[in-house]
Amino acid sequence: MSAPGAAAPDLGGGAAAPEPMPARDREQGSSTQTSHRLLAYSDALLSIIATVMILPVAHTKIHPDQKLGESVQQLLLAKIAVYLMTFLIVTVAWAAHVRLFQVIEFIDDVLALLNLACMMIITFLPYTFSLMASFPEVPFGIFLFSICAVVIGLIQAVIVAYGFYHPHLLNRQIRVSENQNFYKRHILKIILRGPVLCLLAAIFSFFFIPLSYVLLGLVIIFPHLTRFVSWCKTKIVGQRDEEEEHHSLETFTFYLSEPLSKERVEAFSDGVYAIVATLLILDICEDNVPDPREVEEKFHGSLLEALSEYGPNYLAYFGSFVTIGLLWFVHHSLFLYVKKATRLMGLLNILSLAFIGGLPLAYQLTSEFAEKSHNEIEAIQISCVITFFASIFQFAIWTAALHERETLHSFARYGGKEHAFMFAKLALYPCVSLGAFFLTCLLSEFSTAIFHVMQIVIPFAFLALRIFVRISSTVIKSVLSLSRWKAVLLEEEEACLSPTETLS
Amino acid sequence: MSAPGAAAPDLGGGAAAPEPMPARDREQGSSTQTSHRLLAYSDALLSIIATVMILPVAHTKIHPDQKLGESVQQLLLAKIAVYLMTFLIVTVAWAAHVRLFQVIEFIDDVLALLNLACMMIITFLPYTFSLMASFPEVPFGIFLFSICAVVIGLIQAVIVAYGFYHPHLLNRQIRVSENQNFYKRHILKIILRGPVLCLLAAIFSFFFIPLSYVLLGLVIIFPHLTRFVSWCKTKIVGQRDEEEEHHSLETFTFYLSEPLSKERVEAFSDGVYAIVATLLILDICEDNVPDPREVEEKFHGSLLEALSEYGPNYLAYFGSFVTIGLLWFVHHSLFLYVKKATRLMGLLNILSLAFIGGLPLAYQLTSEFAEKSHNEIEAIQISCVITFFASIFQFAIWTAALHERETLHSFARYGGKEHAFMFAKLALYPCVSLGAFFLTCLLSEFSTAIFHVMQIVIPFAFLALRIFVRISSTVIKSVLSLSRWKAVLLEEEEACLSPTETLS
Repeated sequence: MSAPGAAAPDLGGGAAAPEPMPARDREQGSSTQTSHRLLAYSDALLSIIATVMILPVAHTKIHPDQKLGESVQQLLLAKIAVYLMTFLIVTVAWAAHVRLFQVIEFIDDVLALLNLACMMIITFLPYTFSLMASFPEVPFGIFLFSICAVVIGLIQAVIVAYGFYHPHLLNRQIRVSENQNFYKRHILKIILRGPVLCLLAAIFSFFFIPLSYVLLGLVIIFPHLTRFVSWCKTKIVGQRDEEEEHHSLETFTFYLSEPLSKERVEAFSDGVYAIVATLLILDICEDNVPDPREVEEKFHGSLLEALSEYGPNYLAYFGSFVTIGLLWFVHHSLFLYVKKATRLMGLLNILSLAFIGGLPLAYQLTSEFAEKSHNEIEAIQISCVITFFASIFQFAIWTAALHERETLHSFARYGGKEHAFMFAKLALYPCVSLGAFFLTCLLSEFSTAIFHVMQIVIPFAFLALRIFVRISSTVIKSVLSLSRWKAVLLEEEEACLSPTETLS
Repeated sequence: MSAPGAAAPDLGGGAAAPEPMPARDREQGSSTQTSHRLLAYSDALLSIIATVMILPVAHTKIHPDQKLGESVQQLLLAKIAVYLMTFLIVTVAWAAHVRLFQVIEFIDDVLALLNLACMMIITFLPYTFSLMASFPEVPFGIFLFSICAVVIGLIQAVIVAYGFYHPHLLNRQIRVSENQNFYKRHILKIILRGPVLCLLAAIFSFFFIPLSYVLLGLVIIFPHLTRFVSWCKTKIVGQRDEEEEHHSLETFTFYLSEPLSKERVEAFSDGVYAIVATLLILDICEDNVPDPREVEEKFHGSLLEALSEYGPNYLAYFGSFVTIGLLWFVHHSLFLYVKKATRLMGLLNILSLAFIGGLPLAYQLTSEFAEKSHNEIEAIQISCVITFFASIFQFAIWTAALHERETLHSFARYGGKEHAFMFAKLALYPCVSLGAFFLTCLLSEFSTAIFHVMQIVIPFAFLALRIFVRISSTVIKSVLSLSRWKAVLLEEEEACLSPTETLS
């Protein structure tokens, strides 16, 4: 359009002042913008939407007389399914969004508004899942979801078309590439494969609903499936196949085979951790403020006495916050060592986050049932299991990173103090939660005490971890050097003895 | 401690690999980290906590038969007070946090854990406000709040002490400055003035509660009060006073007088916009999924018919999302032109965000009362007022920025197309919401229609705005040039006439 013409005066105006803005930024005048803040906002929206559906799960009222084991199965299953489906679908949409904005690096007002429209439809998805969970036999829920997915795909296709029509918005490498059409087709394929499957699901929903659900499941696992198939192919056929593919694509650069930018993985994870940490206080504020009349009648006007009834709730709140905060801390420490995130690491991160999102449920269970003998142990064991899986997947990210080249900074590789320290940090939560789980099985009458002691001790364990690792590595080193020293001494003695012998 | 000794081997390990990490980052080995992600996470936590207390306000059940005008006063006042107090106190804490981490630029594990502990106490503050609102005459609520504030102040003081004990964590300018103690005292003063006032409030809460509330209010307005007093002093005494002060402080650099970094203002705002936009879907998911039994009995199994009852809710949802999204878009456009945020701009931004946080209430009102003649107009008018104030404060940021030097990029200053375009963007929402407000007063029977037309038209207005501004500026220019051309023509005619006359 008239972008170059409009840009000229702005460029002049901008160039007149020596601002700290990067030069790239105003290449096309001020109507072209870096996408940084748009992406940060999208990440925040997507992470909150992915996680917030745990609230209806956590708020499910379970009658205290019911056994938790049965009621979980009966009441929570549909809501947990909604949560998991939302979480997984939103992460798929997020991954597609990341790929899309790796191709389109700059935005203008039209792209910003199109992106907002896309976000609006994505935030509506949880409602379609709620309908599906309540009416599994009615095709309307799945039809509505599919329509939303198709609309999202269409908006993103429009974004791609707009970006390639205004090449100054594209990634620099693609802009100068001769193969623009190849990139266009590639990114359209990534964006539209989900919506096409959904369209099929929408059509089949009126004839044969189970097939629709299968197709929906396929949308979630499709990206990983294709990756897995190509991985298997490489393993069987050998490395040659992949190399050939790379050759045929000429300038097929890293960012299309490397799907996730580290910054956006971090931003998305931060959003999930932050929303989970803050949702808890909502429950505290709504449920644990005593009724003024009740205080007057039951506790003779003593607020302190009334509040002391809620003791376990406060303990559960601080315990959950500490758990989430420390798991964020471990994640933060881990990603300081990570140079780039592979697709497998991204998948493991998302699995870890899915369990992080389950922590409000753990809070609700431990705060509500901590004092009722029926469900006490089960509530604590569920909490331990959620914590265990959240932390073991973090550990898996680390092992996955260790087994690939160029994923970690060199100082974090095998050997060295930093490696040992990171290992200890990552291993702490899986070990402790597993230990607590088995301890509650053995000493069931002390389960609450065990759980609370665990939650209080862990922060101090993290503070002492560096000292512990330093001491143990010093001990190991001194033991090793002592044995070596002894060996050296013996050798020297022998060496000394032999010359003296020869001398004497 | 042993930091330099411990750093040496890591530094060696890090230097061996040519990674894209900034050099500063590992000056002290890998145990010292940039604070970027910690701050992003803190911003997310603080913005969510500041906003999330609107949910209890929005969820207040008002009986449809009650008149909204009265019931608002009776039911909502306490909850709105809790929301506003939380919002304002959290923003004060956030501003102190920003200043603190402008002094301490790098973090290590201990600081990260201390910061998490600080965040934990801050997220607990809404509960103390809930207690205060429910029991305004009992000193315990205000006492609990004050204790929390004092603990937050103490943790932050420990962070300062730790930072100055390990100078490699400090901002580079302070690290090399001779006046480290001055900086230490200055930042401690900023951090501790709130907690000291709270301590006084805690003490007075047992004797004379109103004074405690006055002290609490003082905590919120204190930063602005001191600023205002010094501004008045400057105005009365003249510039000299300020200059003298600057001289006495030697290397008193910009970042202590310039309180807010633009990145953190953006991050905090993004968090508020994102949580407000996503909280809406929770309500939709919990309230607007019909009961399967009811569908069977009332609608003969037709889900579509049952859902059509919720039509106004969907409209209200999309309308609210569009409003929030577009206000974010205006904010985003505005801050692209902003080079740095002054204290006044920060204050105006926070006031704008406080009204943004009120939008879920507007959604709830318009979705619940849209079809009930009693409260329809009042609900819509409240929504218009909230939108108007949210957008007019954005406009005020722009005018505040225009009146100071070096706050805007030069191409956005007076005159020029970008300036006119930004002006039009910022003026759109205040004009439309004000117009809708007065239209509903005049044409009260069409108020719902007016409101919905407004919400649907605005996105297209934004898309067409650039074209509109271009056309109008072209028209103005052509009119101007036409009149100038005429004047020139007349002059030329005169000039032509006179020589010919003289010639002839």
